[in-house]
Amino acid sequence: MVGGGEGAFIGGVHRMAARLDGHWDLVAGNFQSDPEKSVAFGKAQGIETDRAYPDFRTMAASEAKRADRIDAVAIVTPNSTHHAIARAFLDVGIPVICDKPMTITRKHAEDLADVVAKTGLPFILTHNYSGYPMMRQAREMVTSGGLGAVRIVQVEYAQDWLATELPGNKQADWRSDPAKAGPGGALGDIATHAFQLLEFVTGLQVQTMAAELSAFVPGRRVDDNVNIMLRFGTEARGMLWASQVATGSVNGLKLRVFGDKGGIEWAQETPETLLFTPLGEQQRVIRRGGAGVSVSATYASRVPGGHPEGYLEGFAQIYADAAELVRAHQEGREANAFAKLAPGVGDGVRGVKFIEAAVASSKNNGAWTALE
Amino acid sequence: MVGGGEGAFIGGVHRMAARLDGHWDLVAGNFQSDPEKSVAFGKAQGIETDRAYPDFRTMAASEAKRADRIDAVAIVTPNSTHHAIARAFLDVGIPVICDKPMTITRKHAEDLADVVAKTGLPFILTHNYSGYPMMRQAREMVTSGGLGAVRIVQVEYAQDWLATELPGNKQADWRSDPAKAGPGGALGDIATHAFQLLEFVTGLQVQTMAAELSAFVPGRRVDDNVNIMLRFGTEARGMLWASQVATGSVNGLKLRVFGDKGGIEWAQETPETLLFTPLGEQQRVIRRGGAGVSVSATYASRVPGGHPEGYLEGFAQIYADAAELVRAHQEGREANAFAKLAPGVGDGVRGVKFIEAAVASSKNNGAWTALE
Amino acid sequence: MVGGGEGAFIGGVHRMAARLDGHWDLVAGNFQSDPEKSVAFGKAQGIETDRAYPDFRTMAASEAKRADRIDAVAIVTPNSTHHAIARAFLDVGIPVICDKPMTITRKHAEDLADVVAKTGLPFILTHNYSGYPMMRQAREMVTSGGLGAVRIVQVEYAQDWLATELPGNKQADWRSDPAKAGPGGALGDIATHAFQLLEFVTGLQVQTMAAELSAFVPGRRVDDNVNIMLRFGTEARGMLWASQVATGSVNGLKLRVFGDKGGIEWAQETPETLLFTPLGEQQRVIRRGGAGVSVSATYASRVPGGHPEGYLEGFAQIYADAAELVRAHQEGREANAFAKLAPGVGDGVRGVKFIEAAVASSKNNGAWTALE
Amino acid sequence: MVGGGEGAFIGGVHRMAARLDGHWDLVAGNFQSDPEKSVAFGKAQGIETDRAYPDFRTMAASEAKRADRIDAVAIVTPNSTHHAIARAFLDVGIPVICDKPMTITRKHAEDLADVVAKTGLPFILTHNYSGYPMMRQAREMVTSGGLGAVRIVQVEYAQDWLATELPGNKQADWRSDPAKAGPGGALGDIATHAFQLLEFVTGLQVQTMAAELSAFVPGRRVDDNVNIMLRFGTEARGMLWASQVATGSVNGLKLRVFGDKGGIEWAQETPETLLFTPLGEQQRVIRRGGAGVSVSATYASRVPGGHPEGYLEGFAQIYADAAELVRAHQEGREANAFAKLAPGVGDGVRGVKFIEAAVASSKNNGAWTALE
Repeated sequence: MVGGGEGAFIGGVHRMAARLDGHWDLVAGNFQSDPEKSVAFGKAQGIETDRAYPDFRTMAASEAKRADRIDAVAIVTPNSTHHAIARAFLDVGIPVICDKPMTITRKHAEDLADVVAKTGLPFILTHNYSGYPMMRQAREMVTSGGLGAVRIVQVEYAQDWLATELPGNKQADWRSDPAKAGPGGALGDIATHAFQLLEFVTGLQVQTMAAELSAFVPGRRVDDNVNIMLRFGTEARGMLWASQVATGSVNGLKLRVFGDKGGIEWAQETPETLLFTPLGEQQRVIRRGGAGVSVSATYASRVPGGHPEGYLEGFAQIYADAAELVRAHQEGREANAFAKLAPGVGDGVRGVKFIEAAVASSKNNGAWTALE
Repeated sequence: MVGGGEGAFIGGVHRMAARLDGHWDLVAGNFQSDPEKSVAFGKAQGIETDRAYPDFRTMAASEAKRADRIDAVAIVTPNSTHHAIARAFLDVGIPVICDKPMTITRKHAEDLADVVAKTGLPFILTHNYSGYPMMRQAREMVTSGGLGAVRIVQVEYAQDWLATELPGNKQADWRSDPAKAGPGGALGDIATHAFQLLEFVTGLQVQTMAAELSAFVPGRRVDDNVNIMLRFGTEARGMLWASQVATGSVNGLKLRVFGDKGGIEWAQETPETLLFTPLGEQQRVIRRGGAGVSVSATYASRVPGGHPEGYLEGFAQIYADAAELVRAHQEGREANAFAKLAPGVGDGVRGVKFIEAAVASSKNNGAWTALE
Repeated sequence: MVGGGEGAFIGGVHRMAARLDGHWDLVAGNFQSDPEKSVAFGKAQGIETDRAYPDFRTMAASEAKRADRIDAVAIVTPNSTHHAIARAFLDVGIPVICDKPMTITRKHAEDLADVVAKTGLPFILTHNYSGYPMMRQAREMVTSGGLGAVRIVQVEYAQDWLATELPGNKQADWRSDPAKAGPGGALGDIATHAFQLLEFVTGLQVQTMAAELSAFVPGRRVDDNVNIMLRFGTEARGMLWASQVATGSVNGLKLRVFGDKGGIEWAQETPETLLFTPLGEQQRVIRRGGAGVSVSATYASRVPGGHPEGYLEGFAQIYADAAELVRAHQEGREANAFAKLAPGVGDGVRGVKFIEAAVASSKNNGAWTALE
Repeated sequence: MVGGGEGAFIGGVHRMAARLDGHWDLVAGNFQSDPEKSVAFGKAQGIETDRAYPDFRTMAASEAKRADRIDAVAIVTPNSTHHAIARAFLDVGIPVICDKPMTITRKHAEDLADVVAKTGLPFILTHNYSGYPMMRQAREMVTSGGLGAVRIVQVEYAQDWLATELPGNKQADWRSDPAKAGPGGALGDIATHAFQLLEFVTGLQVQTMAAELSAFVPGRRVDDNVNIMLRFGTEARGMLWASQVATGSVNGLKLRVFGDKGGIEWAQETPETLLFTPLGEQQRVIRRGGAGVSVSATYASRVPGGHPEGYLEGFAQIYADAAELVRAHQEGREANAFAKLAPGVGDGVRGVKFIEAAVASSKNNGAWTALE
């Protein structure tokens, strides 16, 4: 692991998610930019002294030489550092599990895509919400035609934790600093999740969009509210709203897809159920572990229905998928098809293009702007 | 009443809403364009033969001469006919209760506004959703600063009853005919409700908007899906989505408003509760008839909380308000302040401007377009 | 109408419910025990002076003599007076619409049943919750075998408005006075609704029960909390809970029925949906006005689905049914089968037996006690 | 670990729960009664060959001798075997984490309590639902007087997976066999959870109860439906319903507590929110990780609010508490006060008394029966 030391949020999440299914052990890391603190943190995590590294380059170089080298590195640092770290490990042949957004420029994103294409190394991007069983269920339903032709996509991701200035909050600080977070605020932090999820579930690709970014909190240098209209190159139309100042919202990622034969609705805060209405029929409540659940959803499930799985299980699924992808790569075999549903470097490239197009459209008074 | 004969939906709703509180009796009408059918329908409604009129002009002329003339006329015909009918009654000094949208052109809308301004006659537009007690509660909260400065408005109105062609369905037919419905489909039929409600609750006025209208059902001549981004002349930003092809949706009008001190959320299908979260505090469930309910909401309420009021009661409130406005006009006194919350000719003008701006923006590839 | 004057709650409800569908006009009444106040109240309701009566006996006698006599009387007085009033009208051949519980003794209840049996006069008991379309839907589903053999019935009715003493509250006062309310507090006021509803929906009849009544508020002379276990003479078992001190509850009437082939769930505060799960299948949301709705539910419905109907509409259905029953009686024909679903004198008798058995069981430390 | 081999459900849950927080590693076990299968299963779990034991007595004896002996044993076998296994490990000084119900007789339960009292060894009973943060929040609120004096307790646990015979289902088989499960079916399997949770949250102790047990599925030898009325030695009254044949229910554990100053409501299937209504005020939605959350709830929480925690996290909390209790015991210090909230041998004794009293009451036609 690179990053995730004292005061970090997402590092601990990655560690729990990695542990849950027993596929991964944390054996090496560079947890903080301060070398001493990094070593101390590593020890506290039970890592052997010589594998608690002072910096990521040393880590990559040292691990590459070991017989018991790490199977993969998890990168959980601020966005601006992802590219250099990922390159360092990919260059020595170590698979990467990387937090999103993948990079802060398209050039960097495409560079990683090139390396992955050339080396064939597993690269997993932790768009964790696509690890929820009901999102895999939804994908299977939509892409197999269960809703008919998709007409409307409504996706939103509403939070309120940045509704005021949070001086001294480490999480808020780097996310509000364009140098660390990239050009997007809410755009990069949460709108990219919404964007990835809608493409994951529908199988559609956003072609052009009209965006308006706002920064409501005085002095904020990145957006904290994102309004976007979407076109997909089909008749489908969509809207995406992401906000970190939507007072009263906690982690409100919601997705609705309407086709000419049926519609579905899902909310991340109650992830165990997927509402499905075939046109002209009664609405069905599809429950994880319940009747009519798809094979891909069952694959991503741990305990029986009614025993709620949540955020960590969804995140753990990405790690479980990563384990299978890495093992298959090590063993030179084809990976399980369901594990291939894990987001990868391609999602990373699209996410960065999405950010760039949104910023460009917003600067151009919401003119329709292509992702390419 | 003009309109609302055999096979009509909204006419019966108006009659029930008018009856509920005992303020109104149906005593005269021209219910259908076919004179004979109109008379027959009137009789079936218990109206005296000489007041079941063959056409609206006869009705206006005859009623104007009676000592026991009607206190007001309710107009529940297709949109394109509203203007002529309303003028006929206003011209003989009879107050009007009119269905929305008020007219199909801005010229007609402004003409009615002029007449109302000159005559001082009561004119009530049945944007019934603003009659719900929890919407009056919301208005009082937002406009009194209970949410702080408004930052974000999200409003949507999703139905699915027009997801396919409905040949022979009287309701669908005229709504899909631009000659009768005007230039908007879902835009005029339901987006205007969403638009009026957001302005009613927030006290903000939409200044410009970027719209994309779609007609998903093959052969449909008016829009059945409406995506709009909104600006208000303040820092606030908004989105409006209306659809009549959102499979699985029934009558899903929802409004969310987020300010820098609090946020609210309401859904028409469960109208008795309003969710309110002061920034950084626990969410409160505000119930009609319950703790902390405003005076204006109580004014619009009939039975204790927990005894659900619904669509007809909300609609009846507009009729109760109308009764007070008409009585006050007859008695030459100031009307009750809460009754003045009823939508009027001004809302009608704004609704038509909204339709025209949305159509213009959509034709102009979503360019930001002003309401004036 | 007898009762329902100044300060009464349920009288106004009856009047709105009676008006909604246009079947009934209020033309005569004895609204309060004080003759002068009764006459004044009648005038305020728009009743002709000579039909605003000083007492119910005068009203019965006078109306019986009129050519334009009332079609039925609505009795909305405290429980202890129902019997005498109902008898006065039945004895002169006037149909009765009576509030519940029907009487405060079994003797009185059976006396009314006898008179109704002999005269054949319509007698409607306003167990209004059985007027909800989704309860009629549920009845049709359960009694037609849609759930298989019923195994479990869970019914509850939770309020909190009597959680403290309410000195001076007219509604609370008479309900807490055994002389006016009868031996039951929450038992008579709300548990009887729950009891009637479960028998209405399941078609089962409670045979024996084990009850524990409590009076939590110091000084209260009647129960304010009711716990009961139920047997039906089949393998089915049930529980009934009613409370007027369940803090945070408003008007929480809920019914769940589980058979060997399916289960249903309904809550009065969100009356428009009925949850249905066929064993081993996905849960369905049955909506009023939506797919798969029964003919009897549609009969009891006024506006399309998604336009919420509520308490007044459910209550109005009882009045609509009463109108049909009274008309059929006047015309000497068979009434519409769906109108016959309205609760009648038999429900009244069972309700009183239920109260008596619950009181007896509770006094006997919860021993199983038969309703007969 | 003892038990939890091939085909078991709860063993895997224990392993994931133990892993999640990094406190426990699985290093030894006797997973199945068949010695060969047990060894094979252990290997598959990554356990060293010499610690995959053929039987639990060998395991206890061998582990007791090792320097790196296990810190605790987790017992996840059918109920009838818990006592012997727990004794075997306690007798050699090894702490026990045991599945519920603790034993199938009161004698065995009291025997374990005696041993624990004498030895001071940590003994944790996995009533996992009391590990949910919102249940710890509820306990803190109720026992600190936040609801005032408790008047009413309503608890239920409804499932439907045993609504039919399930021939060949390993989980169903042993639960329906009194020799393995003990005298209770749904009573021991799920009603004990409901019972423990209500005592945990309220701090009240059930004193007497009136129970009716049913076995709806033909041929079933244990109960599958449990109706109970409860008294607590205070004015409070309660009801408990547990069922494994409630068609459409999945894992519906719900708890409601009403005091004279406030009421709360919680459902296991949506465990992240606790509804709280102070008498006469608006209902509050208390969210894990949100405003007003207690210290003990925060202690039991892993990720921010809105990132749903669920069943495995609640279960993991019991394991985290166990880790602290075991470490404190090893280090001879007082354990963290919040870790002491973990259920222990006392809960086990009460659970067995609850089962015995329910069975006795039901056999005696529901007569009120004391737990002692």
